[in-house]
Amino acid sequence: MMGYSTAVPKPVPVMVERGPLPEVRSMPGTARKRSAKTGLPPGSLIHIGQRHTDRAKICLCEYGATHCREREIQSLEGIIPPDEGTSVAWVHIDGLQDIPLLEQMGSLFGLHPLTLEDILNTEQRPKSEDHDGYLYVVLRIFHQGAGGALIPEQVSIVLGSTWLISLQERKGSLLDPVRERLRNDNSRLRKAGPDYLAHALLDTMVDSYFVVLDAFGEKIETLEEVLVASPSPAALRQIQALKRETLLLRRSIWPLREMVGGLGRSDSPLIREQSVIYFRDVYDHAVQVIDTIETCRDMLSGMLDIYLSSVSNRMNEVMKVLTVFAALFMPLTFLAGIYGMNFEYMPELEWRWGYLSLWGLMIAIAAFMLILFRRKKWL
Amino acid sequence: MMGYSTAVPKPVPVMVERGPLPEVRSMPGTARKRSAKTGLPPGSLIHIGQRHTDRAKICLCEYGATHCREREIQSLEGIIPPDEGTSVAWVHIDGLQDIPLLEQMGSLFGLHPLTLEDILNTEQRPKSEDHDGYLYVVLRIFHQGAGGALIPEQVSIVLGSTWLISLQERKGSLLDPVRERLRNDNSRLRKAGPDYLAHALLDTMVDSYFVVLDAFGEKIETLEEVLVASPSPAALRQIQALKRETLLLRRSIWPLREMVGGLGRSDSPLIREQSVIYFRDVYDHAVQVIDTIETCRDMLSGMLDIYLSSVSNRMNEVMKVLTVFAALFMPLTFLAGIYGMNFEYMPELEWRWGYLSLWGLMIAIAAFMLILFRRKKWL
Amino acid sequence: MMGYSTAVPKPVPVMVERGPLPEVRSMPGTARKRSAKTGLPPGSLIHIGQRHTDRAKICLCEYGATHCREREIQSLEGIIPPDEGTSVAWVHIDGLQDIPLLEQMGSLFGLHPLTLEDILNTEQRPKSEDHDGYLYVVLRIFHQGAGGALIPEQVSIVLGSTWLISLQERKGSLLDPVRERLRNDNSRLRKAGPDYLAHALLDTMVDSYFVVLDAFGEKIETLEEVLVASPSPAALRQIQALKRETLLLRRSIWPLREMVGGLGRSDSPLIREQSVIYFRDVYDHAVQVIDTIETCRDMLSGMLDIYLSSVSNRMNEVMKVLTVFAALFMPLTFLAGIYGMNFEYMPELEWRWGYLSLWGLMIAIAAFMLILFRRKKWL
Amino acid sequence: MMGYSTAVPKPVPVMVERGPLPEVRSMPGTARKRSAKTGLPPGSLIHIGQRHTDRAKICLCEYGATHCREREIQSLEGIIPPDEGTSVAWVHIDGLQDIPLLEQMGSLFGLHPLTLEDILNTEQRPKSEDHDGYLYVVLRIFHQGAGGALIPEQVSIVLGSTWLISLQERKGSLLDPVRERLRNDNSRLRKAGPDYLAHALLDTMVDSYFVVLDAFGEKIETLEEVLVASPSPAALRQIQALKRETLLLRRSIWPLREMVGGLGRSDSPLIREQSVIYFRDVYDHAVQVIDTIETCRDMLSGMLDIYLSSVSNRMNEVMKVLTVFAALFMPLTFLAGIYGMNFEYMPELEWRWGYLSLWGLMIAIAAFMLILFRRKKWL
Amino acid sequence: MMGYSTAVPKPVPVMVERGPLPEVRSMPGTARKRSAKTGLPPGSLIHIGQRHTDRAKICLCEYGATHCREREIQSLEGIIPPDEGTSVAWVHIDGLQDIPLLEQMGSLFGLHPLTLEDILNTEQRPKSEDHDGYLYVVLRIFHQGAGGALIPEQVSIVLGSTWLISLQERKGSLLDPVRERLRNDNSRLRKAGPDYLAHALLDTMVDSYFVVLDAFGEKIETLEEVLVASPSPAALRQIQALKRETLLLRRSIWPLREMVGGLGRSDSPLIREQSVIYFRDVYDHAVQVIDTIETCRDMLSGMLDIYLSSVSNRMNEVMKVLTVFAALFMPLTFLAGIYGMNFEYMPELEWRWGYLSLWGLMIAIAAFMLILFRRKKWL
Repeated sequence: MMGYSTAVPKPVPVMVERGPLPEVRSMPGTARKRSAKTGLPPGSLIHIGQRHTDRAKICLCEYGATHCREREIQSLEGIIPPDEGTSVAWVHIDGLQDIPLLEQMGSLFGLHPLTLEDILNTEQRPKSEDHDGYLYVVLRIFHQGAGGALIPEQVSIVLGSTWLISLQERKGSLLDPVRERLRNDNSRLRKAGPDYLAHALLDTMVDSYFVVLDAFGEKIETLEEVLVASPSPAALRQIQALKRETLLLRRSIWPLREMVGGLGRSDSPLIREQSVIYFRDVYDHAVQVIDTIETCRDMLSGMLDIYLSSVSNRMNEVMKVLTVFAALFMPLTFLAGIYGMNFEYMPELEWRWGYLSLWGLMIAIAAFMLILFRRKKWL
Repeated sequence: MMGYSTAVPKPVPVMVERGPLPEVRSMPGTARKRSAKTGLPPGSLIHIGQRHTDRAKICLCEYGATHCREREIQSLEGIIPPDEGTSVAWVHIDGLQDIPLLEQMGSLFGLHPLTLEDILNTEQRPKSEDHDGYLYVVLRIFHQGAGGALIPEQVSIVLGSTWLISLQERKGSLLDPVRERLRNDNSRLRKAGPDYLAHALLDTMVDSYFVVLDAFGEKIETLEEVLVASPSPAALRQIQALKRETLLLRRSIWPLREMVGGLGRSDSPLIREQSVIYFRDVYDHAVQVIDTIETCRDMLSGMLDIYLSSVSNRMNEVMKVLTVFAALFMPLTFLAGIYGMNFEYMPELEWRWGYLSLWGLMIAIAAFMLILFRRKKWL
Repeated sequence: MMGYSTAVPKPVPVMVERGPLPEVRSMPGTARKRSAKTGLPPGSLIHIGQRHTDRAKICLCEYGATHCREREIQSLEGIIPPDEGTSVAWVHIDGLQDIPLLEQMGSLFGLHPLTLEDILNTEQRPKSEDHDGYLYVVLRIFHQGAGGALIPEQVSIVLGSTWLISLQERKGSLLDPVRERLRNDNSRLRKAGPDYLAHALLDTMVDSYFVVLDAFGEKIETLEEVLVASPSPAALRQIQALKRETLLLRRSIWPLREMVGGLGRSDSPLIREQSVIYFRDVYDHAVQVIDTIETCRDMLSGMLDIYLSSVSNRMNEVMKVLTVFAALFMPLTFLAGIYGMNFEYMPELEWRWGYLSLWGLMIAIAAFMLILFRRKKWL
Repeated sequence: MMGYSTAVPKPVPVMVERGPLPEVRSMPGTARKRSAKTGLPPGSLIHIGQRHTDRAKICLCEYGATHCREREIQSLEGIIPPDEGTSVAWVHIDGLQDIPLLEQMGSLFGLHPLTLEDILNTEQRPKSEDHDGYLYVVLRIFHQGAGGALIPEQVSIVLGSTWLISLQERKGSLLDPVRERLRNDNSRLRKAGPDYLAHALLDTMVDSYFVVLDAFGEKIETLEEVLVASPSPAALRQIQALKRETLLLRRSIWPLREMVGGLGRSDSPLIREQSVIYFRDVYDHAVQVIDTIETCRDMLSGMLDIYLSSVSNRMNEVMKVLTVFAALFMPLTFLAGIYGMNFEYMPELEWRWGYLSLWGLMIAIAAFMLILFRRKKWL
Repeated sequence: MMGYSTAVPKPVPVMVERGPLPEVRSMPGTARKRSAKTGLPPGSLIHIGQRHTDRAKICLCEYGATHCREREIQSLEGIIPPDEGTSVAWVHIDGLQDIPLLEQMGSLFGLHPLTLEDILNTEQRPKSEDHDGYLYVVLRIFHQGAGGALIPEQVSIVLGSTWLISLQERKGSLLDPVRERLRNDNSRLRKAGPDYLAHALLDTMVDSYFVVLDAFGEKIETLEEVLVASPSPAALRQIQALKRETLLLRRSIWPLREMVGGLGRSDSPLIREQSVIYFRDVYDHAVQVIDTIETCRDMLSGMLDIYLSSVSNRMNEVMKVLTVFAALFMPLTFLAGIYGMNFEYMPELEWRWGYLSLWGLMIAIAAFMLILFRRKKWL
């Protein structure tokens, strides 16, 4: 966790400068690459990542021990962060493409331009940053796409003293259970501050890894059965694909663990003493996720060994078949060749039982060979 | 060790909230996966892991320097933690499926909901947590199942000032020696506090790894002999299986070592000064377990190398046989083919000793080949 | 970061001693190797690296909140570092071959001889050094050369209280966006000190890695497609070449990350409090670069596995073809050989349907073999 | 080094409890396994390891600046640790099977039951423990057994203020040089305290690794020559055996290094200031041992690569021979087959020089093939 | 760096004891092994390493800001370390075999017996030791021997307040540039103290690695070209040899880097404040050496992969040739065999165009096969 000292000056949103002629490579619906930002000043708001065409959806939820009001809003205009102790405002934004909206949000809640830049750059490594007046948390979750591919999504959480903003790249039902719990009058969420809400969101997102990992584990098991049955190059490529997905998950969960661990040790005034233990619980969950991923990794490494030795074994089998045929028929063909020769003086040819004796000899040789190969366990 | 600051507020058991519509996937007798908890609030008591159908068994043992009373009880009702200095209460619970029982236990001994959740989630990484008024220790032990497979079991120990609760997933005889020692009037266990009992339990459980590892070592030695004799794909799969079991053991023993080491450095008031040296002794045992496991790992890696090169060697053998046959019979068959030709003018055919001379030539060629191959050590 | 204590004495430029008879190996246009400096005293100014023939180009830019004057100059004569608070002088030098120029620069700005030596030795590991009165930063960037090869370039930045010197090995357009921003009257760069300019340069250069990595990623993807289609030894060598480039990038970016991280934690008076957060932002970018490089590395490792197993598979294919031919034709040729024998008493030869029956038998054997191999999936 | 705090209570030897019905698996002369101790209380004195049948031999040596008395004694009875400053008592015990003797020793010198347990458990990891009134050091040395196998032996050293106890598993001449030096009136050993004697023992034992490693290095060199000459599976198994021995040595020397390093930094009053530098010298020797072992390890890894590629090369050789034979004789046999056909109209058969021309053609083809293969360097 | 506390007592040279009957294995001109010292007391002066027959050469150089006197002396007798501030005495000794000389040196300059032992034991790991009154530095340099093999040499430097002793195993011209600089009246060396001379020596020796590494890099490049052209087992063995040399270099340079880094952070009064920055410069050079070595290592690893896959590829080529021949001639030979049969009723034999038609069929089959194999890219 990179806890910033609190001496960072209150950022003035006007400072968000646009780069001179930002290179525009924004085909709708395609990913803009990180390199598009080279040479731009810090705080340049350019959305890095897959562009989603439909407009952002804003959801405001104000709640306290006694009330909980949810509504969808069109703009952040008029939103005032509630006073300490009365109520908590949770702003949830689906979709990052509306840059003026984010600038408005930045000036309303006093966010540093670099925070806005980090929210938009969807290739952030999970981290938490302690800014003046708020805590910025960014992490990555995964969805199971069609065909089983993993689809990453960056989620940003900005935690203030009485408010919390969460931003997702796409619409999804991941946070519905948290909303459900908020509607419940007896829920601890309603009585606690935004730090506990932040915990609830983090907990839900770390737990979402388990869903992904269950599906992952099943894929590995299926693949293993396939591999034992028939080690095809396709299976090898699938091992490699799964390995890469494991790496993807590892790259997201290790810093996430560090980040959550940092929150559990945090001395930020925004995280109350009694919430700390809950962040530690999330830390334990993250450690379990890592353990599961490491087990997957080890299984996949073992599968590569099995694949390679299985290929070797098959070649061995092929070679044995070839050798058995050659060792069986080469001597016999040679013998047949001998008695196909046209020498004038070949006494065996005129023997009465010559032909039959030769058959006998051939059968004897073949039997001997077969017994030999059976003994060598080649048959 | 994640020593929590003692400022954690006394948890109120009423706070254990049930999640909205917890997804029920509890087929009796099958493992419920960790992902079943996604979206539930922290402290949700859902048993993660293999479900055992028979009901939990509770065993209460109250002992002091002069007395030791053991009895099986049906419910925790009426149990009062003894006062300091008079006696120690040891509650042992076999089976985790009785959630109301655990809730009762939580409220009786003032356990935090997260502790209860950890007890039920049987995929915990070994750890110790210093809570307000008690110390929570969770670890994993292994049983040798039928067919030699390793069966993990999670054991939780909650250590209070005058009481200790231990929870196992299954009934077993592992802790019988400790009970036996308790019945002995001269035992140090009877004179010492619950921290020494905790040490006795931990020591017994770490030592149980040696039993598993002895069996493991024998399996490896047997496998090695098999491998040298005949390197089959089945042997390879067994190497992989043993490798995975080694990983399983490592994943349990490394954090266990950390945890025990943490207890040996602990400044918790629950662990008395004179008990600390005993926890260090357990730490040394854990290090020995790790050394043994690492030796197993190295042996298994070496076996994979032996397997792969053994497969290569066998293919080499096959190839040599093939080559010897081909090199022997191809020239001879060619010669036989020559004299099977029907040219009108082939003087050799009419020679008196042509046929016999050819046999002589063929035998010479064959002998030459055989000597050559013998020199190359192919035969 | 190797923060030097400030007790280093003000270096006297006269002290720059020349080694006794420096071994001259300076063919124009070729790289002089590091070993050329063996035995020379420290501070010996010998340019290590690729020599570029055209002369150095000096660019001076003086700017403040209200003004910005850029001009190209021929010599550093007459340059006076501006006073605190009025304006900032940025001297940019393209080309390191003009050693008298560098000596002049050293005496003008009070640089330690070792700093001058480091500027000239273009095999420096990225680092920052806190000297008396200035901060010396050296790093490496990469250009995409013709044919796709990576061309490294060392960039040195010397940051004073009111001035900044940057030195590149070659002319290039990398820093043009920074100059563009300087010309913009509203830019933060104009209002901030030279430390913010240093940040802007570092940010631009770290971001330039993304451009290189995008091209790199495309090369990897192309290579992967080639590999799946036809695993040639050339593809293998290309994997190795890409691996080496990855290593090259890693060797430059890891210490760069450390160095930038050190600047973000620096307590040098030359880096103002409000600039620190920007250096941390650059640190995050460097971490993203590292993540991308590590992903490339993993992909390349996986490709080697795919290559090797693909070679094995192809050999398997070849072997199968060979075996199928041998197993098909060896028995048939043997049969033909039998009936080519010249025994006097071979009743089959005189049968009316002998020839046709043999054909029938041969076709049956061939069909049997083919079915067998199809079952084994060899065909 | 696990420096215990000195607050450990003076252990009362009566506390050594025997476990309830210790499982007896003590066949004389065979190793008892570590798992035999499962379930026993700490401090249970059971000898773990190879049992040696002959009785223990005790050797007492009292020495000071002016005197040195050596004698063999039957029992420890009557031994009184000498007063500070007069003389030093060195008790050396060969053989660990005499448990009552060890208990007597424990009560005489005030050793903690856990120390006695550690002395008997001969699978200890090298470590040093700072107990109340003495320092316990345990390490492992190796002997060259018959057939070149390494035989480990555990040596325990208990260092008091005026006495030192050393315990070995077997009789041996390893410590004779130390005794010899003690007999020398001018030896530093005679003037220094028991800490310097401890250093002399440790130094001798660390240096004994060099003897083992010299033999080891010779084995590796011999094996390498064998490998280059003929890569047999036996050589592979020998590589694996040497690898395991390297691991064995590493597992002993790494913690030994840590332990000796700990003694060199120790603030125990038992190690005098002027002895500390000598322990550091032993540390340097241990580091040299480690360097030598690591070199062995690298050589062994390289040998596995050589072995595997050598096997591949041999298969390549075999394949080339096969292919040369096939490519040479298949076309020729085909040609012979052609002119063995019985068509009525085959004009070549009737040509006068047909037969000889065919021979000419065949020789031409064979020569062409041989030249081709020679060009390909297959011959 | 193992900075000793200064409380080490002034060593008395008389204490250098000889071991009881030191095992003499000193064949002239051969290496004595480290194990020869087993059982000897610390400080036993036995020369470990290659023995050089010619006698040691001592070179004394006294210099100050205004003077520099060099002379070769026969004995150290009469040498008095100069007073502070007047002049510096540099004693350089080539050859370690003259043990009485070293003992004389030890008593003259007050060196600890362990320092003398370390000087003689030429298998020291590079280190620096802060003794009472002097600093002992030992490192290893490499020479390019005949045939390109690396020859290690240990260099010891003892740095006092006004004197410096350097010891080499062999005569050589490595330090000539330093002597040359000393003769130069304007050199910084002449004005600075012995610490700066120590830096000059260290700098020269670290830079000597670059010379070795340049030759090394050329060897690798040559080998790579050989490998691509023809992957012979000899090339493999050369890869292994280069790998070992890399390891040798690594084992020397890593601790050297640590040692130099330690000197750069040293608080020894013997290293003046203004010299510290120069040691840091040497540290940077050492880091560059390490980078170069690591690059070599990676290249060598990649070459092993290339070698192995190249062997596989060649086998593949061989197999393809074999298969093409078999697939081409087996069917044809079979057909020829058919018409070599002696059935009475074989109508084809009597056809007018039978023979020619068969040739046509055979050519068609062969053409078909060749096209097929060309399509498969086997030809």
